[in-house]
Amino acid sequence: MERILQGFERAAGASAAVRFVDVMLRGAGQVMFMDNPLTGLFFLAAILWGAFAVGAPLIALAGLLALAVATATGMLGGFDRTSWRAGLFGYNALLTGLALGTFLAPGAMLFVFVVIAAAFSVFVTEAVGRFLRLHAVAGLTFGFVLTTWLFLLASHGFAGLPAGGLPSAALPGGAVVVASDPLAPGAFLAGVALSISQVFLKDSIIAALLFLAGLAVASLSAALLAIAGAVIAVAVAHLAGAESDLVTGGLLGFSPVLTAVALGSVFGKPTPRGLAIAGFATVVTVIAQAGLNAGLAPFGLPALTMPFVLVTWLFLLARPASEG
Amino acid sequence: MERILQGFERAAGASAAVRFVDVMLRGAGQVMFMDNPLTGLFFLAAILWGAFAVGAPLIALAGLLALAVATATGMLGGFDRTSWRAGLFGYNALLTGLALGTFLAPGAMLFVFVVIAAAFSVFVTEAVGRFLRLHAVAGLTFGFVLTTWLFLLASHGFAGLPAGGLPSAALPGGAVVVASDPLAPGAFLAGVALSISQVFLKDSIIAALLFLAGLAVASLSAALLAIAGAVIAVAVAHLAGAESDLVTGGLLGFSPVLTAVALGSVFGKPTPRGLAIAGFATVVTVIAQAGLNAGLAPFGLPALTMPFVLVTWLFLLARPASEG
Amino acid sequence: MERILQGFERAAGASAAVRFVDVMLRGAGQVMFMDNPLTGLFFLAAILWGAFAVGAPLIALAGLLALAVATATGMLGGFDRTSWRAGLFGYNALLTGLALGTFLAPGAMLFVFVVIAAAFSVFVTEAVGRFLRLHAVAGLTFGFVLTTWLFLLASHGFAGLPAGGLPSAALPGGAVVVASDPLAPGAFLAGVALSISQVFLKDSIIAALLFLAGLAVASLSAALLAIAGAVIAVAVAHLAGAESDLVTGGLLGFSPVLTAVALGSVFGKPTPRGLAIAGFATVVTVIAQAGLNAGLAPFGLPALTMPFVLVTWLFLLARPASEG
Repeated sequence: MERILQGFERAAGASAAVRFVDVMLRGAGQVMFMDNPLTGLFFLAAILWGAFAVGAPLIALAGLLALAVATATGMLGGFDRTSWRAGLFGYNALLTGLALGTFLAPGAMLFVFVVIAAAFSVFVTEAVGRFLRLHAVAGLTFGFVLTTWLFLLASHGFAGLPAGGLPSAALPGGAVVVASDPLAPGAFLAGVALSISQVFLKDSIIAALLFLAGLAVASLSAALLAIAGAVIAVAVAHLAGAESDLVTGGLLGFSPVLTAVALGSVFGKPTPRGLAIAGFATVVTVIAQAGLNAGLAPFGLPALTMPFVLVTWLFLLARPASEG
Repeated sequence: MERILQGFERAAGASAAVRFVDVMLRGAGQVMFMDNPLTGLFFLAAILWGAFAVGAPLIALAGLLALAVATATGMLGGFDRTSWRAGLFGYNALLTGLALGTFLAPGAMLFVFVVIAAAFSVFVTEAVGRFLRLHAVAGLTFGFVLTTWLFLLASHGFAGLPAGGLPSAALPGGAVVVASDPLAPGAFLAGVALSISQVFLKDSIIAALLFLAGLAVASLSAALLAIAGAVIAVAVAHLAGAESDLVTGGLLGFSPVLTAVALGSVFGKPTPRGLAIAGFATVVTVIAQAGLNAGLAPFGLPALTMPFVLVTWLFLLARPASEG
Repeated sequence: MERILQGFERAAGASAAVRFVDVMLRGAGQVMFMDNPLTGLFFLAAILWGAFAVGAPLIALAGLLALAVATATGMLGGFDRTSWRAGLFGYNALLTGLALGTFLAPGAMLFVFVVIAAAFSVFVTEAVGRFLRLHAVAGLTFGFVLTTWLFLLASHGFAGLPAGGLPSAALPGGAVVVASDPLAPGAFLAGVALSISQVFLKDSIIAALLFLAGLAVASLSAALLAIAGAVIAVAVAHLAGAESDLVTGGLLGFSPVLTAVALGSVFGKPTPRGLAIAGFATVVTVIAQAGLNAGLAPFGLPALTMPFVLVTWLFLLARPASEG
């Protein structure tokens, strides 16, 4: 496999088109922190599968279009070339495209919005990265969250862009939480798998396996941490009495999965203390997910990966200087 | 004209009272980034015209009172003298006074609030400026936005201060957007002009011309960029299917006008790339305006110039170090 | 008294258990900025009194549990030992425990939440402190506010954790403010006293006297500033026509009390200008309290001490470098 990657890297050095595809693939891989085109290939395959499986190929198209636009914007915008090559201007756009495709009604205006949002997300990513550099903290997926929230909200002001799949705005506290007890083993496993696929807004067990395979080819420990994060999330959410449909649908688990991978390996050390802190942060992310779901209800906005971003930022800021 | 300004500057050097008026005028000019008392004179004339034209002279009075209070606070508060002389403690207060006068019911309590808010806005301006200095980014009109939001919200808690002109709080997504098609040339021109006058919360074409004249005496390119920003905003908002009343009333255009001037000349270079980025940021500001309008609906708050502040901050943070 | 404190400090040096209790007591004292175990002892006595007086001893238990968990977390988490000894990881947790106990329904799940929230608040405290250190500003009680908001909101998502005492979410502007006129002397005094006890979410005049005694043993000027802040808050809120129940219940005064103490002595100098600015900031905090009450209504969240945090941050950031 090393050999394949080296050959691909040589081809990318020789051809601008191959380099562009390489950077797009790395952009996909960076959704889960992997600077690896093969990971990206698995991830894009999972996205395509997940989109076709629910009969919504346009969602995958929106994601791919956004990824391409952002990769081009990052190339032409005068940004740092090393960051660009690592795909760091692509992952927020890919997620933004998938989210706009998921929550807005399809149509020409949607794709105009996706193009603008994707290019904008590159500037947001750079801005957030620069702002946080002083604190030695990464921007994570905040560029995706901010861009997507802004564009989803804007759909309420434009007749040309109906908000197809957005949740209705509501004051928190009105709904009754329906929690089934106990959680059957099948439902548990489904919840774990979908917690992983929902990182990419996908609701598919096969996509989850492809995402895990993509992670594993780059980092086996990242794949194991993703599974561990999902298991913790499903267990904690269920024990706390969360809505069963949310638990088994992976909708309370995708942020914890990202927290577990980020703090357990990417930005932390897999020491016993490091893993204990990552595990605790993963538990807190489940609570933050429930909290932000309620806090965003009056806006009719999905929390996206903000629970992961918020909790991981706090734990990264708080880590001892010696582990910085 | 240079001669007049030099004579005025001499008089200001000799008399504390003239200096105070000079700083007030510069404070007015700084709403559109101009450190120029003549610009400020035009702007105040436009504000007076706009207020009298709709039979609401108290709004202009609230603005002038706030400007005077802030200028005095900036003088006595131990702040940087150079910033004070350039009017940098005045513009947020002027806008705050105009906004409180516009959205709250007139009365003695309103003017007490205006005085407190104006003095407070000076501390907010300094605080925001200091916080962002590490990132080499200006505070823009955030001091105005934060102060005004806080005081408008507070009116709900005080029987002495009814919220006369505030929009009713509502969950987003409930209203149907009424977009007429096509946009008649007269409506288009009105939308462009009012996008400029609404920077100062004014709804008047004659005021718009006075604002443009004030800009032009200090910087012809700024005046042209203001017009370009307004044209972009009206066109983009209309094409996206925005509510026609908002488009032709300039209510989706005042933030983009500020973005165009700020990124096109004040904080950016008028190179082709610089102008392309400023143009793109202007388009994004239209979307951000629609987004923040929806996002603030549950609070019953107007977005004020926050779309400009948010988008311009992001683009300033993201600009290449070489253009910093 | 110095003698008692010295003896206690000797004992703490010799025994880890006494040190732990010492740090817990200092943590309680730090709610009002006092690094003094005797102050903490008075504060805990006041909390116990206030909780038993309303027949809710579990609230005090939640606070004490949180304080102990945070003190242990701060000890084991690899944080700065000097900060830990000064109780700086305890005060946010104590307030968080009291708030969760006050607003959520009692039960086993509540105490699980309190333990998690307390440990989390230590990381939030450290993260916020680190983030603001670049600006030479303290984190104040933001760790408490952020943690508590997140966990209160999360209760809407968990059937196991009913939100017993949370206000219902509502759009601002719907309620009619009932302001009685005039304010009787007894009601005025009650408002002043309860403004002090509500810093700890307590509604008791005897608790207020204990809090004042605890302040006075460490700093007489802090105790006087607390009273002055409460007097200003009650007077300003009443004159502005605030809801009489909120004024006399101290619910518009606890944030101003903290602002007065923080800017009047802890972080400021008691010069005439310093006191004038602290007094002005205290007035603004009353308005900010009303503003945030309205702004948080759609979330059904209490403002907690956020008005104090926001206003004090702004004034600390804005103070002249020479007084930094």
